[in-house]
Amino acid sequence: MFFQNVYEKGLAQASYFIGCQATNEAIVIDPKRDIDTYLEIADKENLRITKVTETHIHADFLSGARELAAATGVEILLSDEGGADWQYGYEHTGLKDKQEFWVGNLKFEVMHSPGHTPEHISFVLTDTAAGTKPIMIFTGDFVFVGDVGRPDLLEKAAGIIGTQEVGARQMFHSLKRFKELDDFIQVWPGHGAGSACGKSLGAIPCSTVGYEKLVNWALNIDEEEKFVQTLLDGQPEPPKYFSMMKKLNKTGPDILGSMPHPAKLTLSQFEDALTNKLTLVDTRDKLAFAGGHIPGSIYIQNGASFSTWAGWLLNYDDEFILIASESSIGDLVKALIRIGLDNVSGYFSDLDKWINLGNDLEIVNQVNCSELFEKIDNPEIQLIDVRGVNEFTDGSIADATNIHVGYLYDNLDKIDNEKEVVVYCRSGVRSTTASSLLLNKGFKNITNLTGGYLSWTQDCGNKVEKENQLETER
Amino acid sequence: MFFQNVYEKGLAQASYFIGCQATNEAIVIDPKRDIDTYLEIADKENLRITKVTETHIHADFLSGARELAAATGVEILLSDEGGADWQYGYEHTGLKDKQEFWVGNLKFEVMHSPGHTPEHISFVLTDTAAGTKPIMIFTGDFVFVGDVGRPDLLEKAAGIIGTQEVGARQMFHSLKRFKELDDFIQVWPGHGAGSACGKSLGAIPCSTVGYEKLVNWALNIDEEEKFVQTLLDGQPEPPKYFSMMKKLNKTGPDILGSMPHPAKLTLSQFEDALTNKLTLVDTRDKLAFAGGHIPGSIYIQNGASFSTWAGWLLNYDDEFILIASESSIGDLVKALIRIGLDNVSGYFSDLDKWINLGNDLEIVNQVNCSELFEKIDNPEIQLIDVRGVNEFTDGSIADATNIHVGYLYDNLDKIDNEKEVVVYCRSGVRSTTASSLLLNKGFKNITNLTGGYLSWTQDCGNKVEKENQLETER
Amino acid sequence: MFFQNVYEKGLAQASYFIGCQATNEAIVIDPKRDIDTYLEIADKENLRITKVTETHIHADFLSGARELAAATGVEILLSDEGGADWQYGYEHTGLKDKQEFWVGNLKFEVMHSPGHTPEHISFVLTDTAAGTKPIMIFTGDFVFVGDVGRPDLLEKAAGIIGTQEVGARQMFHSLKRFKELDDFIQVWPGHGAGSACGKSLGAIPCSTVGYEKLVNWALNIDEEEKFVQTLLDGQPEPPKYFSMMKKLNKTGPDILGSMPHPAKLTLSQFEDALTNKLTLVDTRDKLAFAGGHIPGSIYIQNGASFSTWAGWLLNYDDEFILIASESSIGDLVKALIRIGLDNVSGYFSDLDKWINLGNDLEIVNQVNCSELFEKIDNPEIQLIDVRGVNEFTDGSIADATNIHVGYLYDNLDKIDNEKEVVVYCRSGVRSTTASSLLLNKGFKNITNLTGGYLSWTQDCGNKVEKENQLETER
Amino acid sequence: MFFQNVYEKGLAQASYFIGCQATNEAIVIDPKRDIDTYLEIADKENLRITKVTETHIHADFLSGARELAAATGVEILLSDEGGADWQYGYEHTGLKDKQEFWVGNLKFEVMHSPGHTPEHISFVLTDTAAGTKPIMIFTGDFVFVGDVGRPDLLEKAAGIIGTQEVGARQMFHSLKRFKELDDFIQVWPGHGAGSACGKSLGAIPCSTVGYEKLVNWALNIDEEEKFVQTLLDGQPEPPKYFSMMKKLNKTGPDILGSMPHPAKLTLSQFEDALTNKLTLVDTRDKLAFAGGHIPGSIYIQNGASFSTWAGWLLNYDDEFILIASESSIGDLVKALIRIGLDNVSGYFSDLDKWINLGNDLEIVNQVNCSELFEKIDNPEIQLIDVRGVNEFTDGSIADATNIHVGYLYDNLDKIDNEKEVVVYCRSGVRSTTASSLLLNKGFKNITNLTGGYLSWTQDCGNKVEKENQLETER
Repeated sequence: MFFQNVYEKGLAQASYFIGCQATNEAIVIDPKRDIDTYLEIADKENLRITKVTETHIHADFLSGARELAAATGVEILLSDEGGADWQYGYEHTGLKDKQEFWVGNLKFEVMHSPGHTPEHISFVLTDTAAGTKPIMIFTGDFVFVGDVGRPDLLEKAAGIIGTQEVGARQMFHSLKRFKELDDFIQVWPGHGAGSACGKSLGAIPCSTVGYEKLVNWALNIDEEEKFVQTLLDGQPEPPKYFSMMKKLNKTGPDILGSMPHPAKLTLSQFEDALTNKLTLVDTRDKLAFAGGHIPGSIYIQNGASFSTWAGWLLNYDDEFILIASESSIGDLVKALIRIGLDNVSGYFSDLDKWINLGNDLEIVNQVNCSELFEKIDNPEIQLIDVRGVNEFTDGSIADATNIHVGYLYDNLDKIDNEKEVVVYCRSGVRSTTASSLLLNKGFKNITNLTGGYLSWTQDCGNKVEKENQLETER
Repeated sequence: MFFQNVYEKGLAQASYFIGCQATNEAIVIDPKRDIDTYLEIADKENLRITKVTETHIHADFLSGARELAAATGVEILLSDEGGADWQYGYEHTGLKDKQEFWVGNLKFEVMHSPGHTPEHISFVLTDTAAGTKPIMIFTGDFVFVGDVGRPDLLEKAAGIIGTQEVGARQMFHSLKRFKELDDFIQVWPGHGAGSACGKSLGAIPCSTVGYEKLVNWALNIDEEEKFVQTLLDGQPEPPKYFSMMKKLNKTGPDILGSMPHPAKLTLSQFEDALTNKLTLVDTRDKLAFAGGHIPGSIYIQNGASFSTWAGWLLNYDDEFILIASESSIGDLVKALIRIGLDNVSGYFSDLDKWINLGNDLEIVNQVNCSELFEKIDNPEIQLIDVRGVNEFTDGSIADATNIHVGYLYDNLDKIDNEKEVVVYCRSGVRSTTASSLLLNKGFKNITNLTGGYLSWTQDCGNKVEKENQLETER
Repeated sequence: MFFQNVYEKGLAQASYFIGCQATNEAIVIDPKRDIDTYLEIADKENLRITKVTETHIHADFLSGARELAAATGVEILLSDEGGADWQYGYEHTGLKDKQEFWVGNLKFEVMHSPGHTPEHISFVLTDTAAGTKPIMIFTGDFVFVGDVGRPDLLEKAAGIIGTQEVGARQMFHSLKRFKELDDFIQVWPGHGAGSACGKSLGAIPCSTVGYEKLVNWALNIDEEEKFVQTLLDGQPEPPKYFSMMKKLNKTGPDILGSMPHPAKLTLSQFEDALTNKLTLVDTRDKLAFAGGHIPGSIYIQNGASFSTWAGWLLNYDDEFILIASESSIGDLVKALIRIGLDNVSGYFSDLDKWINLGNDLEIVNQVNCSELFEKIDNPEIQLIDVRGVNEFTDGSIADATNIHVGYLYDNLDKIDNEKEVVVYCRSGVRSTTASSLLLNKGFKNITNLTGGYLSWTQDCGNKVEKENQLETER
Repeated sequence: MFFQNVYEKGLAQASYFIGCQATNEAIVIDPKRDIDTYLEIADKENLRITKVTETHIHADFLSGARELAAATGVEILLSDEGGADWQYGYEHTGLKDKQEFWVGNLKFEVMHSPGHTPEHISFVLTDTAAGTKPIMIFTGDFVFVGDVGRPDLLEKAAGIIGTQEVGARQMFHSLKRFKELDDFIQVWPGHGAGSACGKSLGAIPCSTVGYEKLVNWALNIDEEEKFVQTLLDGQPEPPKYFSMMKKLNKTGPDILGSMPHPAKLTLSQFEDALTNKLTLVDTRDKLAFAGGHIPGSIYIQNGASFSTWAGWLLNYDDEFILIASESSIGDLVKALIRIGLDNVSGYFSDLDKWINLGNDLEIVNQVNCSELFEKIDNPEIQLIDVRGVNEFTDGSIADATNIHVGYLYDNLDKIDNEKEVVVYCRSGVRSTTASSLLLNKGFKNITNLTGGYLSWTQDCGNKVEKENQLETER
């Protein structure tokens, strides 16, 4: 048996490539859309991918199952569980609870495990060449290392009212079946730390059934009501694009055929794009964006969370131009197509040329924490904390209002156009994005706290404490 | 808890980087000598390596523990078990059976597990932030996935007579303790498939205690004598350099300070090296070597087994020149320093320049299988199969003599200088090496079977069968 | 004025990018077909290409004029001189002797300069911002550094009988006009050393009118008959593809749109290609090809002359598969499209995989010079020298027959199938190609002299001399 | 004869590699200090460098002659002209006017050509294999394309009063000798457009004697006084480091042995460097620097003029840390060692890590031209134009004070600490540098005009004109 886990950091998402060396066949579970990764493993290990499957209709990335089938002619195996509303809309071999399928000597048994979603299935793998007992279970968004999948996405992201409690109860019952598995079975989940599909995922790639039974909080609450309440409590904000993912993954994502290579725009092509009002997505370093950018650009830093923020902030109907370096464009485009943002019509690298035409840049007004400290008591300043609610409640600057950057557009009425609006986040990345969104919406008096809450607590920490002491003494 | 396994394919060797995110401390278990890998993980994950340890005195690669300590000042933790002959000769904190040490919230418990070697220890890890039970065991060369460490290396490679049986019995008793561990504990071993430290290692990175108890042959023989006999039976030839590794790892490998960068030789520097009779190691494609090489070169293909063959065939006291491309030299040098072959004084890439001086190349005489088939019955041909004995006994060309390429120098008297000597292996790599060794020793009439036994059975298979049929019919 | 010469080493071909910084306009003279080079200069220097022209209908490479026009909309300026048979067949602005055109402040005056070809023109450039006198002349294949263009290509390559003498006489008269130019004018020709478009081109990028008048042999013969005779004497063999180039350049090369990226073939795609009998072009190192290759492959080394040999040896109607590394494929494809060999349907890099299926390689039988020396007197050996006739007459191995590798297919009847045929060239590259051609045509007993005539004269030189001495003494 | 010009864009400096293919010998004229360029050409062309020479004691870069001699053992040929004050202080073969030396068949004749400097010599090259007349002259900083070397550097940069007029007169007489050369001789100068060694150099790599006689202004003034006056008029500001270069080139630059590779600093190493007050040179994009940088950093953009600005602004006795990316560090270090700034002790790439410790960044306050336009009439604003005086006199914003960025430290008393100081240059690069210098000196109220004078004239041009019209109408 050959086994390789493929971990995509940007989405904290795991897929699995499992092969039988006796017959040279292989299967991929939960593939991402940039399928070259799997084709390369197959090529290197001299295995032929014959099947592809997935645990459920994903909400956080586009499935690569159709893409893989189009490229290699493999059979697509998908869940037929979950009822009429949860049936895949494209051709596949249906899978039901307890059904088996084989890849060479490897036996996969389907285990219906609703909770995160109604149609969710897991796969119990037995290497029949080695023994008769299962070696691994692939749990998708059912059981994570130290956590379980959240059942509230449909309700929060897709607005299907009432589903989150139903899901939580299903999860409770699915976990009962999980507990019946042998302790020694390895557990390989669909997500790792950092995913928005759960709330406290560990930074370990795998676990075992027995260990999860011991330490996973969700396997240690025996009372259904308490479980439901705990599970639904404190889940982070789901990214806005999740409902779009659900829809596309159900009907079947478009076939790309090959990885798109957006054109490197010349200066004049870029000027045309500006004239045509294409959406500009600036991916440079946050300090460079603050130092100057093309008016109207939306800022999303080229980093681990690029996919997620693009999904939050961009409109699936728009056509995009990226401000990006040649060396970064490949990864950026991959990050976008992973969530179905396929409309990148080009990228532009040489901002200096545009500047040298005498064009006027837009600048993000900035303060560092020392400067903010000097004027923090000024009543003409409105502080907006654009982090998640969990981060905000863990500690924030006094008198700040919390608006998650992903919900900024929905809360523009809370921004006081008459005041100097100081936005901040943890380290300055999300607040630079927030600044770009507000400037884009015509707000004028926006100031970004460069080093974020981090610098506020660290560098200005002593001052704050001293200040507090002084106040106490008074 | 942060966990990352680092797998070095050339030696099929696994090391482990484990960190506690609460205190930002980390430990490395069984580091290889090119320690940049660990420094990069530490840098990326913002963790500080504070401890380094190893499971035993390795025989197949040089330990990077001293190197890591020299670079970062970490504490070295080493086994003090195994008796007087097995004590490390350099500064360290000693570890004894059942002793504990901590890395942040992570507790490591030492488990003395002799068998592969007398001082061998394993580490049982408990993440105390998650629970009170262990999550993983790091077994080094004690328990592999589907196999256990071989106890015969000392006897075979280092010539310490009688040790292999003693080791086998120790292994039997160590396994008893292993069986007492909880089923759900993950097992992360020191080697994967392809290592010479065991005979049937699986191609899966990890297992669990419970699963190994079910499927690992070594945990399913309850009778000591039968266990000892089975364990010692059919172990592959240990590479010759293993005794050198043992010696160096015990006294402590030299500190490199930084990765060596051998000079790219100009033509005239290379001519000087030839004049000084430095050892030439040709690493090009096997077909290029056969097509022409500098007389006297030793052939070791740049591939997954480069370290191993270099260890088998090169002399630790020699100074080497590599015939290698600029893009490959970095990996080749890493592969060499991993086993302590530090004496690379340069490399030469531009063979054409040397040829264009009018120098005469040496050519490896070759046949393909069709040509060999035509003359196979000629009594003036001696067939030498240079594969391992296990491969040879699985099937070979009729009348071939088996001499493992690593033992060729010890068996030159078996080569008949009067006949045409046809060497072959599986696919032509090792037989090209064998050809280079024999040419280097002055044999003249050497012929290499290009496609090896593979082409003989595949491409000439039908002919052979037909031939056999004809013979049967006659 | 901005000036940059673009030199393509493989074809020893020069093109010129000249811009007027006052108006940001630029022109390209004699562009190659991979026009990205010019677009990048334009982008970097902030110039807009507005015109493209060429000196004549090239015979050694495909013109990039149409490609550049298609990409940027520039005006194409082409010669309307030379009579009815020499008119371009695609849309352009016609140029006649003494006509002028402008690029910003730069004035180009057309000078009809037949000889190499009837329609050939040169461009005399005056930078009117600096002065009223010309600064440079772009001579194409009219005047080179130390030589002039050859007038025999049409007759030799295209078989148009009688044209070479007519051309030689035209050249004589064109040179008279050249001599009337001012001495200080810089001369920038269309080719440098190594081109087949002249016989003794210097390794200096440019010259001056005055200097050429002093040292260029062709400007120092005043008698027409003697000039004609000297010019036609000793011209090297013109590559076979020259007639095809003439034809395509006259009617207009196909527009590529963008640089082709042939697919990297997987093993099974490659096996399909073999089944479909696509032409295999092996571009690896010559020693690797000799050491083993796929039966039927044609060998053309990846090197400076790749374009030229591909033009000599490949059939424009065939579809090709290259055996090439991923890092080399880009340059190889450029080299092919430069001469219109656009039919590359893919490349295959991993010969080992094909070998590991058990397939049988073909091997080139080889000798080095020492071995050849031993058997050189054997009457059963036929020596074939595949170098050019000029090289052959400069010195060769005794009793060798000279057949230029490019004419080998036309002279197969001269190869004695009953003897051992030893092929050699200068250093072993062309003889490896010759070996591949002969093996491809079914010859069995072919041997390649590895180090070529170079090794024969250098390494075996002393032996040869001694032998000769012995013979003289006898 | 083999000929290759090597052009270093950052210093607009040309060196020449000339070889004789008959004897495989070569010479380098005016080498830069990163001599790998020449060694690579020699290797590629199979030539052996046997001599190195230079035209004069350079003021704008460190000579690589000693470095080349140390690496290859070549003979150094240097001018012994110019009198006692202008003698080289290290071992060499002396050259005097009209002296000859040979490289194979190539004859070099020394021509003393003072003016730029007293010891300046030029080399007249004759390829004796081709003819008896010279083919080229290497003029160093004597005659450029369209200009001549400036004679005022010693006086302005080194403060040797009275030398500029003496030099101008010497230049007048040297040019008389130049005019006597044959028209057809190619002229290859020491600098191209953009060098500070002349005032109007053309963007063409070479010229001819005859053409320069026609168009070069300096060869067309026959009256000495007028010539002297014209030559000295309007020369740009010489960079401050020129006097240091003169001194080092005279005594002989230090031998590097190999190119320095400064260490990539880890976060903790970088923090140590900050504690030790090493000079920080930030080389990132200007907008990123403005958006945030480590307090106290000096800004020099990684671009074509990096060497020059480093020479202007850095102190030769300091130790430097560069803020730079890994991919840029090689070129940056080369640019620094070319002018003798060898003290780079490391570089730091990961500013985000430093920020994530909670450290406070310094921000450059910025305006774009629209914003400046709104408040330009405010008397509390002081406008500083940091461009060269020639640029300033060509056009500037009303009421601006001109202080060349290179002289800013000498004119701090002209900056009004009480006002908002708005600095600008052409496009925002030099003004960002100026901002960094002023912040470094403790000025608080500094504002940078982002798009520079370019944006002022382009984007705000209409507004300015309208404003002016309004004013005129009033």
